Amino acid sequence: MQDIKIAMIGGGFMGKAHSLAYSAMPMFFWPAPARPVKHVVVDATEDLARTAADRYGWNSSSSSWEAVINDPEVDLVDIATPNNLHAEIAIAAAEAGKHVICEKPLAPTSAEALQMLEAVERAGVVSAVAFNYRRTPAVALAKKYIDEGAIGRILNFRGTYLQDWSADPDSPLSWRFQKKIAGSGAVGDIGSHVVDIARYLVGEISAVNSITSTYITERPLQTSGFDALGGASKSDGPRGAVDVDDEAISLVRFHNGAVGSIEATRNAWGRNNFITFEIHGTEGSIFFNYENRDELQVAFKSDPADRRGFRTVYTGPNTPYGEALWPIPALGIGYGETKIIEAHDVIKAIVDGSRVRPDFADGYAAALVDDAILESGQSGEWVKIPTRDGGDV
Amino acid sequence: MQDIKIAMIGGGFMGKAHSLAYSAMPMFFWPAPARPVKHVVVDATEDLARTAADRYGWNSSSSSWEAVINDPEVDLVDIATPNNLHAEIAIAAAEAGKHVICEKPLAPTSAEALQMLEAVERAGVVSAVAFNYRRTPAVALAKKYIDEGAIGRILNFRGTYLQDWSADPDSPLSWRFQKKIAGSGAVGDIGSHVVDIARYLVGEISAVNSITSTYITERPLQTSGFDALGGASKSDGPRGAVDVDDEAISLVRFHNGAVGSIEATRNAWGRNNFITFEIHGTEGSIFFNYENRDELQVAFKSDPADRRGFRTVYTGPNTPYGEALWPIPALGIGYGETKIIEAHDVIKAIVDGSRVRPDFADGYAAALVDDAILESGQSGEWVKIPTRDGGDV
Amino acid sequence: MQDIKIAMIGGGFMGKAHSLAYSAMPMFFWPAPARPVKHVVVDATEDLARTAADRYGWNSSSSSWEAVINDPEVDLVDIATPNNLHAEIAIAAAEAGKHVICEKPLAPTSAEALQMLEAVERAGVVSAVAFNYRRTPAVALAKKYIDEGAIGRILNFRGTYLQDWSADPDSPLSWRFQKKIAGSGAVGDIGSHVVDIARYLVGEISAVNSITSTYITERPLQTSGFDALGGASKSDGPRGAVDVDDEAISLVRFHNGAVGSIEATRNAWGRNNFITFEIHGTEGSIFFNYENRDELQVAFKSDPADRRGFRTVYTGPNTPYGEALWPIPALGIGYGETKIIEAHDVIKAIVDGSRVRPDFADGYAAALVDDAILESGQSGEWVKIPTRDGGDV
Amino acid sequence: MQDIKIAMIGGGFMGKAHSLAYSAMPMFFWPAPARPVKHVVVDATEDLARTAADRYGWNSSSSSWEAVINDPEVDLVDIATPNNLHAEIAIAAAEAGKHVICEKPLAPTSAEALQMLEAVERAGVVSAVAFNYRRTPAVALAKKYIDEGAIGRILNFRGTYLQDWSADPDSPLSWRFQKKIAGSGAVGDIGSHVVDIARYLVGEISAVNSITSTYITERPLQTSGFDALGGASKSDGPRGAVDVDDEAISLVRFHNGAVGSIEATRNAWGRNNFITFEIHGTEGSIFFNYENRDELQVAFKSDPADRRGFRTVYTGPNTPYGEALWPIPALGIGYGETKIIEAHDVIKAIVDGSRVRPDFADGYAAALVDDAILESGQSGEWVKIPTRDGGDV
Repeated sequence: MQDIKIAMIGGGFMGKAHSLAYSAMPMFFWPAPARPVKHVVVDATEDLARTAADRYGWNSSSSSWEAVINDPEVDLVDIATPNNLHAEIAIAAAEAGKHVICEKPLAPTSAEALQMLEAVERAGVVSAVAFNYRRTPAVALAKKYIDEGAIGRILNFRGTYLQDWSADPDSPLSWRFQKKIAGSGAVGDIGSHVVDIARYLVGEISAVNSITSTYITERPLQTSGFDALGGASKSDGPRGAVDVDDEAISLVRFHNGAVGSIEATRNAWGRNNFITFEIHGTEGSIFFNYENRDELQVAFKSDPADRRGFRTVYTGPNTPYGEALWPIPALGIGYGETKIIEAHDVIKAIVDGSRVRPDFADGYAAALVDDAILESGQSGEWVKIPTRDGGDV
Repeated sequence: MQDIKIAMIGGGFMGKAHSLAYSAMPMFFWPAPARPVKHVVVDATEDLARTAADRYGWNSSSSSWEAVINDPEVDLVDIATPNNLHAEIAIAAAEAGKHVICEKPLAPTSAEALQMLEAVERAGVVSAVAFNYRRTPAVALAKKYIDEGAIGRILNFRGTYLQDWSADPDSPLSWRFQKKIAGSGAVGDIGSHVVDIARYLVGEISAVNSITSTYITERPLQTSGFDALGGASKSDGPRGAVDVDDEAISLVRFHNGAVGSIEATRNAWGRNNFITFEIHGTEGSIFFNYENRDELQVAFKSDPADRRGFRTVYTGPNTPYGEALWPIPALGIGYGETKIIEAHDVIKAIVDGSRVRPDFADGYAAALVDDAILESGQSGEWVKIPTRDGGDV
Repeated sequence: MQDIKIAMIGGGFMGKAHSLAYSAMPMFFWPAPARPVKHVVVDATEDLARTAADRYGWNSSSSSWEAVINDPEVDLVDIATPNNLHAEIAIAAAEAGKHVICEKPLAPTSAEALQMLEAVERAGVVSAVAFNYRRTPAVALAKKYIDEGAIGRILNFRGTYLQDWSADPDSPLSWRFQKKIAGSGAVGDIGSHVVDIARYLVGEISAVNSITSTYITERPLQTSGFDALGGASKSDGPRGAVDVDDEAISLVRFHNGAVGSIEATRNAWGRNNFITFEIHGTEGSIFFNYENRDELQVAFKSDPADRRGFRTVYTGPNTPYGEALWPIPALGIGYGETKIIEAHDVIKAIVDGSRVRPDFADGYAAALVDDAILESGQSGEWVKIPTRDGGDV
Repeated sequence: MQDIKIAMIGGGFMGKAHSLAYSAMPMFFWPAPARPVKHVVVDATEDLARTAADRYGWNSSSSSWEAVINDPEVDLVDIATPNNLHAEIAIAAAEAGKHVICEKPLAPTSAEALQMLEAVERAGVVSAVAFNYRRTPAVALAKKYIDEGAIGRILNFRGTYLQDWSADPDSPLSWRFQKKIAGSGAVGDIGSHVVDIARYLVGEISAVNSITSTYITERPLQTSGFDALGGASKSDGPRGAVDVDDEAISLVRFHNGAVGSIEATRNAWGRNNFITFEIHGTEGSIFFNYENRDELQVAFKSDPADRRGFRTVYTGPNTPYGEALWPIPALGIGYGETKIIEAHDVIKAIVDGSRVRPDFADGYAAALVDDAILESGQSGEWVKIPTRDGGDV
């Protein structure tokens, strides 16, 4: 079996998730398309990198991402850094001829995302953006239903991503609240996942009309932890300004005529990882809530009137990716599984020389929507999503 | 105990619900503010009216609403007709010095609603509009929480009203699909309830930005049944044009700074009477789904981190209207209870000489929002909600 | 339309529910089988009775149940008193030639229940026992599915009735905790409903094996309120002994080979009116929870593997009793509706001269099971349910 | 960091889960107590073993479990074979001085389980039985609540494990339906998990009273796949007899006075991995359903009456094992996480020289309960659970 040697840039929470995925992928998908080799991990300092290597099982470590992307042994560069570093690393990696997988959002702005896309295209390498939630088995099952015509023509879509880890005004001003690093707030961080799911299930978005709000305008300066989520390190020390959105609600229009809404906020007490979508079609409806991610709800017009209603279908051996996962429905799909599937699909594309979705083109398309949401939030007007060559969809 | 003699105009499904309410009110609220007397019911023909009187227990019947509103014995006129008759009857009733309760939406257009409002004001009579869902005990409990500050300052609101009874293109072209009778489609018929709930819980809406769609542009002409809902009388005969909206999704801005969205459609397979709202505040969140109407979900920031989450609170003796209703939570709140409470509150206002909410001023305010949703659906722009004297909020 | 003149004995919470039912029945079921006339209500004193008549809309009142059951105008005697009065009143009413509906459980013991059954049989009158929950539309839909064979041969049944109104040791020692009045605790008060549902849906129970417990062995003596449920009148005054069960869990065997369990307790914090059942058959499964009573969940083996799962079906026009109730599913079934249907079915039986179910034979059968549960809770052994003539099933 | 070298016996689904756990453990728990080294994997043939090693990332492979347990480099033997091989391997491993983790149930009978227990005690090695579900974070949170007294004294417990993979009579006669290999059917396979959870949360079980049933008495002989679950390989070929239970329902009494019930069946259409428990205490209640395993529901008596109800608490950083897992509640706990925690706890015990729970003593205790359930299912009488030295609890 072929080896695919990986350099991972970033040893935080996402580094953990990706490391798990590479180790577990052949256990789940067998025969595996290739063997992922955890070749080298990069973190901000030598110490951090060495610890990451020890902890996550990488063969070596480095504090220089520049060095590792020029390591001739490396096949795939995996970027799991804060958003503002994505473009520089990804472009350099592509120019070094490496395949690239990059965490989401692809970049703080669509302009940078475009540069990244152009770089991988020039280089002819495989690219991927880590919108992992579309690989939740139940989301893939929704896609299968739609492709089979089970709910008919799609009329509308409403998607949400609600969390509460930033609802506390005393939670720290991490990089996720700083525009210069993150690019945006809820829109890019979590809203982009919903945009990706919308594009995956319904199609291209043509225009948006948004409200954006910043609920908590200053937060305590962060004194520890690079990637803290939530209230881990509350402080009554000095505060700094938040310059990103806490909330975005958008109307959306799809190219195929469907309409809908997308909402994202990290200030929703009681919601944790509340990624939901509801889709109504001419022949049925679909509902999904990631908090109960083993299940998909689907209603069919064709059921007899006295037996019609949402069915709660648990994903398992008979649904997408099922054979590779667990032998019984509801045995338990976790976050890891979405990343294991992602790793599989990316490595398979590298081996096959095929395109994997979502790739940098998808990441760029999502970034265009994110930018439009932010712009509409400012202007109060419908913003059309441009096509890549500058026209409107 | 004082008698309040009632003339009810309309003997359809709503006539049944209102009749139940008048009979049951003193059973639930005791001592009752007054005794509702089911004096006379009016329907389109003498036969229909006589049947309604027999069935619903009214003392007499008539086919002339003009006659009964001039009956000096009548204290309260109850209008349960299709929307296009509301204004004429209500204005005449007010001019005859009668108190008036009118089914929702108050009128097909805000212009008519304003005339109705002015009429009751001139006459100095009690007016009420039958947005019954705000009287669901769990909705009243949400109001109580908000008034107590339990969820802090409200940040946002998203409300839906989803049904599926018009999702079938073969369901008949009832009056509810005809603009000249209904005024609008989903917006007035069901969206207006969500507008009322939003105003009740959050406050005045200042502006909206909407998408409106008509999914099914023609339907079979109706050959029977005045007020058919759903597929009761499917037909393959001739079809007529639908000239109202099947779907409306709106961004909303509230006067107090809160933001949100409102959606209404009767084309959502699998949803039946899916009136939901979710409200996030600085100190907590609330979620409600009418399909499980005995319960309200509420999350509090102040709970310890390892015991925080949405609480499912069942309404009962310890929650609003509880003493009057059933002695154990979840014994079962039905549609009737919302109407029984409504009847109580209206009759109490008549006796007290006080204002009941929602009244025609509320009905007019909701109609202004409905009109703005429809206008924005056409223009694609934010539409401000005018104040009554013509300015913007 | 024929009149059926009713004498109702008892003006508490159940009196309210029954009064509502009689008033509303023709509104829902039209043409009605007959017109229920609220002829006379009886309560413990003249004052209480007069108030009940005023409040619940009865034509007259009395403090003598003996007098009213001998009133030649009375057709139907409705017994809504504490359990220990059921037998005496019912037997006298039957002997006076009156039809009888009696609240559940039919009597404190099966011996008394048998006397009541024999009395109505001797008299040839219609009898009914008010196990209203089997008339929840979703429960009737479960029965329809089973009768249609939709879930195949029934393998097992587990039913629960969980409440929490007696979980507080400071809630008062009402009659419901006194064996001499109530006969038993959770078993008769609420478990009997589950026994009735089990018999309705699955068939006759042949044997039980039980644990019974009394969690709170003394409670404050009650100083007010005849029929208080829950903590309405907490007290730190003197306490008295509880001599009934707080909890019963039973294994059950059905005559047709199905097995299962039944549990009842009023000490389950967080459960309010949690009547649930789950039934597995060879072709599918059914789940019901009264707290969400508008819906029934059903799963079918015959669904394709990737579309199989519990369907959430909302009752409405297309399900049992649907035409009579509300025109849209999930508009809202409350406690009242179960009683309105019950009133209809009883009055129809009187008019038709037919048998209504559940009748005193059913009430007796349930009482035999209740007694067996209590006996097994003492003996720790399987107790067979005797047949009426003394043999075992 | 110390190495713990592992020999895993069995390369099926459980081998996959355990392999994942060993690879991922240090990624989650850092610093790890030791580094698990996947030293050697054993399967029935050299080919199968080599494939398992390749797939699951083991350093070597073997078809002789006898050989590997005598390999002096091996520290820990992990037994993931069918039940009938557990005892022989575990005893030999203990005698070779190896620590042992064994899949559940510990053995087909309590007699064998006792031999295993005695063997590890004699050898003084760490033992563990893989009742992984008690390590679901939400179950551990339930334990924490109980230990903190949050729900007061426990009154009762009812637990279920319902699946549907054997509901189809055409699913094959795998080893799980053969007494000589599996020992029992639903009781040992899945009911034992509920027994373990009951013992973990409530305490020792003193007696049981059961119904056991075999619904499908013959199944197609299996022609492929050693460990098939469900209908994967349906067949119309020859059939063989099922000699184990399909269903068991038990009353249970705990040593501390609590009562309850336990049910297990793999014939429940629509249930997939429906491990649930509900516990009522004097101060509150807990409900858990593994199908929605990220959440625990808890109700507290101490909440104000108008804010009381089940709270839905999502496990995350603030709940047990939280720091080690994912940084946001509901990010997604899967089956793997339960095994990763298990691997951690076992290896930590080896390093610390401490006892891990559940160990072989717990496995034996559960086996005693399983045997008692089966015995009571035959005798129809209460069966006391003996203590280890032969007395009754």
